[in-house]
Amino acid sequence: MQDVFNDTGGSVKELKNLIESGDEIGIAAHVDEISPRELARTVARLDDGDRTRFLELLGPAKAAYVLSKLSGIGAAGIVEQMNPDQASPIVGEMTSHDQANLLRDISGHRAERILRDVEPTAASETRALLNYPENTAGSLMVTEYLSYNGRQTVKDVLDDLRLFGEQYSDYDIQYAYVVSDNGALIGVLRLRDLLMAGRNRLIEEIMIKNPLKLDVGTSFRELSDFFGQHALLGVPITNDQGIMVGVVRASVVREAVTRQSNQLFLKFAGIVGGEELRTMSLFKRSSRRLSWLSINIVLNIVAASVIALYQETLEKAIVLAVFLPIISDMSGCSGNQAVAVSIRELTLGLVRPRELLRVFAKEASIGLVNGIVLGLLLGGAALLWKGNPYLGLVVGVSLAANTLVAVSFGGLIPLILRGMKTDPALASGPMLTTITDMCGFFLVLSFASVLLPRLSG
Amino acid sequence: MQDVFNDTGGSVKELKNLIESGDEIGIAAHVDEISPRELARTVARLDDGDRTRFLELLGPAKAAYVLSKLSGIGAAGIVEQMNPDQASPIVGEMTSHDQANLLRDISGHRAERILRDVEPTAASETRALLNYPENTAGSLMVTEYLSYNGRQTVKDVLDDLRLFGEQYSDYDIQYAYVVSDNGALIGVLRLRDLLMAGRNRLIEEIMIKNPLKLDVGTSFRELSDFFGQHALLGVPITNDQGIMVGVVRASVVREAVTRQSNQLFLKFAGIVGGEELRTMSLFKRSSRRLSWLSINIVLNIVAASVIALYQETLEKAIVLAVFLPIISDMSGCSGNQAVAVSIRELTLGLVRPRELLRVFAKEASIGLVNGIVLGLLLGGAALLWKGNPYLGLVVGVSLAANTLVAVSFGGLIPLILRGMKTDPALASGPMLTTITDMCGFFLVLSFASVLLPRLSG
Repeated sequence: MQDVFNDTGGSVKELKNLIESGDEIGIAAHVDEISPRELARTVARLDDGDRTRFLELLGPAKAAYVLSKLSGIGAAGIVEQMNPDQASPIVGEMTSHDQANLLRDISGHRAERILRDVEPTAASETRALLNYPENTAGSLMVTEYLSYNGRQTVKDVLDDLRLFGEQYSDYDIQYAYVVSDNGALIGVLRLRDLLMAGRNRLIEEIMIKNPLKLDVGTSFRELSDFFGQHALLGVPITNDQGIMVGVVRASVVREAVTRQSNQLFLKFAGIVGGEELRTMSLFKRSSRRLSWLSINIVLNIVAASVIALYQETLEKAIVLAVFLPIISDMSGCSGNQAVAVSIRELTLGLVRPRELLRVFAKEASIGLVNGIVLGLLLGGAALLWKGNPYLGLVVGVSLAANTLVAVSFGGLIPLILRGMKTDPALASGPMLTTITDMCGFFLVLSFASVLLPRLSG
Repeated sequence: MQDVFNDTGGSVKELKNLIESGDEIGIAAHVDEISPRELARTVARLDDGDRTRFLELLGPAKAAYVLSKLSGIGAAGIVEQMNPDQASPIVGEMTSHDQANLLRDISGHRAERILRDVEPTAASETRALLNYPENTAGSLMVTEYLSYNGRQTVKDVLDDLRLFGEQYSDYDIQYAYVVSDNGALIGVLRLRDLLMAGRNRLIEEIMIKNPLKLDVGTSFRELSDFFGQHALLGVPITNDQGIMVGVVRASVVREAVTRQSNQLFLKFAGIVGGEELRTMSLFKRSSRRLSWLSINIVLNIVAASVIALYQETLEKAIVLAVFLPIISDMSGCSGNQAVAVSIRELTLGLVRPRELLRVFAKEASIGLVNGIVLGLLLGGAALLWKGNPYLGLVVGVSLAANTLVAVSFGGLIPLILRGMKTDPALASGPMLTTITDMCGFFLVLSFASVLLPRLSG
């Protein structure tokens, strides 16, 4: 059990000592040595005071690097807990895209307070990015990219690259964009085409004309489709006047897809907001989980009220009480499989919200097959236990019928919710179990009340 | 309700007409016009005969394009249903990497039959890729990349690029790799450095020496960490003799991360294998789902046997039967939230399998808070319904205690399973509900049997 205490503890302890002794060089070296995973884990284990001191000792540039490795997994929370005066220099070291990404998760007032001390041009670019709706091209684009006027020569571009190459190395781009005098995008210049062109040619002669571009309001899903269709590393973004305003990189869209699919998993398990880390405050974690649980408990009580209606039947065949939770749980499991497949197919675009009949047909056949198998299993178990074939019949047939209901509805609910523009991940589960519980309890108990003389025998 | 029938139906119908009339040009145009999403949806709705005829009419190159858009979402199934003689020319149009990706999901015998008619060099590269364990650098790398001998000059490289540029355009690379006479990797050449170098210099003089490289056996997780640490588009892969054998692109690793996180979601919902599409056969879908459900039903019966032990208590306070499914379901919900957060933190590397005490402390506090709130809600509801404070006490306290158990165990189970090298996604749920059901039933019924005179009153 010793390992329980020691794991990662070594790194945390070492870092704490370095922080206490104010050893700036030692801390910088420590950060360079450990992997991003280890870094995230270590920083999560520092208390708030140590963490702030740690970032201070690192200096703004290195602290910005550390926060970039914690992007989406705690960076916003750390910055939120810092004094804005301490946060500003660190935030100032990031690209506008990263600044916007971070500040999006922080309250508007506090974000503005941090931006006040950031270099004005960068800050106003970040503010512009923050104004675009989340998950549109505007919010995902970078505003740092290479652009040249079409009337410049190949030599002009090469000179510029030679002079400022160091500065551009952050840009991580393989293309330069060519604009007209008023800033409208007119072409794309592949850097490798510069290799072969005469030095005095105008770049508008060697650029690719009529480049692919997207509007600043393009949705995340359209972007994802775009990069599915075109093997490009990035796409230029223009505003409604055709002026180039940024570049969305394929890698950013892919990361957003991954983030969304992680959120899906957590929402499906009832984590409102799609993210929870154990570095968050107890209050935030507890209240988010409760907001979903409290709706569930109300729905559960409603569903269980069906049992209350059949109290007399239950009194005469108390053995049924053993089977009610089994039927409830198994129907939930079967139904949730269908829910998950529908959510998956919706995400992939393989099914549309309106295709209810197709999904119903596909799921009902599985519901029928699996219902019969599960019904035979449970019915058989009941028969073996009590030696009463009627008991086996009641629970077996009820589970079979309820599995059919659960699987069919499970397939349909995400489509219906998506059709109503609601996120199916959070709501499908509770809706499903309410329906299957009510239906399942009704099936067992009403069937049992018909066969009551045979059951209580 | 008309829409239910018509959606996507238009595109499918149009395509079917084109297939029937054998209109090759029309089909190619149709494929170009629709988005990859629409394409996937349409192809999924063709029956097997039409689909084969469709790919035939498209010709191998275009058919390979279509299959690449269905990679991971049905392509393998389509190729598996095709005659190997028809599949070979299509597969032959793909890069070795894509060939291996596709054939990995197809039975070995059939895959070999398809490869027999593929161009021998490509086929043997694909076979080599298929031999590397899944999710290692070997299985994820591409074997098409630019490489030059260090003793070649800048002019040699530029001439080669000019001559074969068209052919290399598929390579999608920004770097060339520099090798020694025996094929060992000695450097990396940035194409932009070629811009500024004298034409007669040797490339070993302008290359970046001692480049970052990884071994062919590097795991998927290490690769993901590597690209988290280094902002690179790709990394060269060497075998144990230092010979360069391929390049793993960052985008491929990112896609593998996304695929894994989608699989996680589906496994969590009880889809064995982590993928199910409604284009799969009923038998495959049904049997996969059943394999997980049948384990669940056995566990459910075991858990419910606790109720059977307290049959006498239940007979005297039949009202408890209403609350048993509620306590079972709510504890499952609370516990699954903790399971999901643990799986998420394990994936991110924010927690290690051994940190049981830390997770226990973090979850127990939430379990306590949420347990008290939920207990008060359910206890209150019971009191209101029957006006019996003892009933409220029994169900409220039992739910509170069981929520604490469920949340604590829910946090720990994924760590324990991962520590045992088992995938927590599929097994955590059933393990959790078995524990929480048994414990919940025991708490309610044993507490009730103590207070029995007060309950039955």
